[in-house]
Amino acid sequence: MEKLLCGVDLGGTKLSVGLVKTDGVLIDRIVVYDHISKGEEDMIGQISDLINELLLRNKIKDDNLLGIGVGFAGHLRIKQGIVITTSNFKGFKLKNFPIRDAIKEHFKSKMEVIVDNDANAQAYSEYRFGSGVGYDSMIFLTISTGIGAGIILDGRIYHGMTGTAGEFGHTIVDPHSDIQCGCGNYGCLMSCAGGLSLPQIVKKKLKKGMKTKLQIDRSSNLEAVDGKMIKQGLDLDDELCKEVVLECADYIGIGIYNLFQIFNPPAITLGGGLMYWGDLYFKRIKEKFYTLARDMLYDKIDISLTKLGGDAGLIGAAALLLEKR
Amino acid sequence: MEKLLCGVDLGGTKLSVGLVKTDGVLIDRIVVYDHISKGEEDMIGQISDLINELLLRNKIKDDNLLGIGVGFAGHLRIKQGIVITTSNFKGFKLKNFPIRDAIKEHFKSKMEVIVDNDANAQAYSEYRFGSGVGYDSMIFLTISTGIGAGIILDGRIYHGMTGTAGEFGHTIVDPHSDIQCGCGNYGCLMSCAGGLSLPQIVKKKLKKGMKTKLQIDRSSNLEAVDGKMIKQGLDLDDELCKEVVLECADYIGIGIYNLFQIFNPPAITLGGGLMYWGDLYFKRIKEKFYTLARDMLYDKIDISLTKLGGDAGLIGAAALLLEKR
Repeated sequence: MEKLLCGVDLGGTKLSVGLVKTDGVLIDRIVVYDHISKGEEDMIGQISDLINELLLRNKIKDDNLLGIGVGFAGHLRIKQGIVITTSNFKGFKLKNFPIRDAIKEHFKSKMEVIVDNDANAQAYSEYRFGSGVGYDSMIFLTISTGIGAGIILDGRIYHGMTGTAGEFGHTIVDPHSDIQCGCGNYGCLMSCAGGLSLPQIVKKKLKKGMKTKLQIDRSSNLEAVDGKMIKQGLDLDDELCKEVVLECADYIGIGIYNLFQIFNPPAITLGGGLMYWGDLYFKRIKEKFYTLARDMLYDKIDISLTKLGGDAGLIGAAALLLEKR
Repeated sequence: MEKLLCGVDLGGTKLSVGLVKTDGVLIDRIVVYDHISKGEEDMIGQISDLINELLLRNKIKDDNLLGIGVGFAGHLRIKQGIVITTSNFKGFKLKNFPIRDAIKEHFKSKMEVIVDNDANAQAYSEYRFGSGVGYDSMIFLTISTGIGAGIILDGRIYHGMTGTAGEFGHTIVDPHSDIQCGCGNYGCLMSCAGGLSLPQIVKKKLKKGMKTKLQIDRSSNLEAVDGKMIKQGLDLDDELCKEVVLECADYIGIGIYNLFQIFNPPAITLGGGLMYWGDLYFKRIKEKFYTLARDMLYDKIDISLTKLGGDAGLIGAAALLLEKR
């Protein structure tokens, strides 16, 4: 019987555990949301229980697993499999936690467990099974509440010294910006174009006197503004929302241009929650990129959308086991 | 007899040809400046003549060379050894020129000839013989008339798809800047902190009413402002020059911070003509970096100055022959 991959997508909201074939096809999965209320050890125990439940109901022995791949929303010491920190789990949960070994303890000693950053896992699944197929290198940019990149060079995930490479959302693209990022700095890409900054971006436009059809105003529910609300505005042909989307797109276009100048990659793939803003957004991103790159672009670069849907994180986590290390 | 490396540093002002030992020690070199007045084929012939002259006067047979490494100030199709374009040679000279094969034709067929971008060559020499010794990866940033990076990952030069990776000077760090780069864009790192932009930066400060001890004013000889003139101002404790240096340093600090977030490298080395601005400049660069990186820096990063002097380009060109390909 062909061996299977087990993927674990461990985020601050959702914990998904799945069985994936080596061709990237998801066989079965369990999704829970109550992991976040547990302590660290209990959370790891829950992950182990969910894996065993999946194996049992699919009549698969753990010997039939190639291993367990974990995609984690936070910073990791990659070689040691230790969480450094994460802003996605409240109360410093999992800070300095040896997550890889803690999971390993629940299984036979020969079970391989690989833990990586979730953006890296998604990048790798895109490279193996999605828009990156056919390229030896590619960059995956996830644009959501935050912004991050997974860098695939010559078929391998590029991690850097500690394991935190690809934190592209924190690169500064507008140092005179007055929008502060969660990291404390001003003008990083995340603060200019990430989901978390939408309330501040909208607030600035309201201050300038722009009108909106949305039921928001400066004083009350501005903090509730998120990507979905902006999308509703787009569907209503709302001027303010359109301008927000185009402004964010311009910054992402700059970001992609910067990636191009640094990496000269054959392919850049975009994913993440804000991509549902649709054509207006994606077209403007590409326009901005090509306006900047012009005659400095000597070979075609493939700027595409993710081909993997909502399970990209889970499939990517599983696919980590296929990377040549 | 131990084999030697032949290095060729081909720039728009200076052509240097040298013999280098495999430990990076320069044995002999010839420098000329009249290559720029020649046609393409004559320039290649001159390079060949200079190499033969060096071999002759050092009593070395061409069989004793490991090969010829060429560092070139311009964009290359790296796999094909073809110049794409360069802004350093007037009249589109060398555009689309197959420089590697043209040099090869002057030597025995088994002579290895490697051509790479000059920033890459310098980065590689820094990695082999300079501040990068002991690290598996590093980034070399050259700050001069222009700004560029050489990226060494796991002991190899990272080239990207075409061969133009590392054009870090063209990454945009201030999109609302009104200073235009030679590339046509506004607000790229080169336009904010490169030598070519100094006249524009000084002009803005004069416009704001800043006084200077230098003999420059808005109308007359502003275009003559260069790094050396600013350095003279520093030595005179000139306020305007100090402010220019600190402003440029802040942008370089942002650039290094961006490199850190993207690559998470163990080492970044700075070289290039503007580094002679000295301590005021280098200290401020590091201050800006650490102010931005703060608690996101989990491991020590070594930010250093080049250890190789004016011959770094030549030694780097020769060292290209030592890279595992």
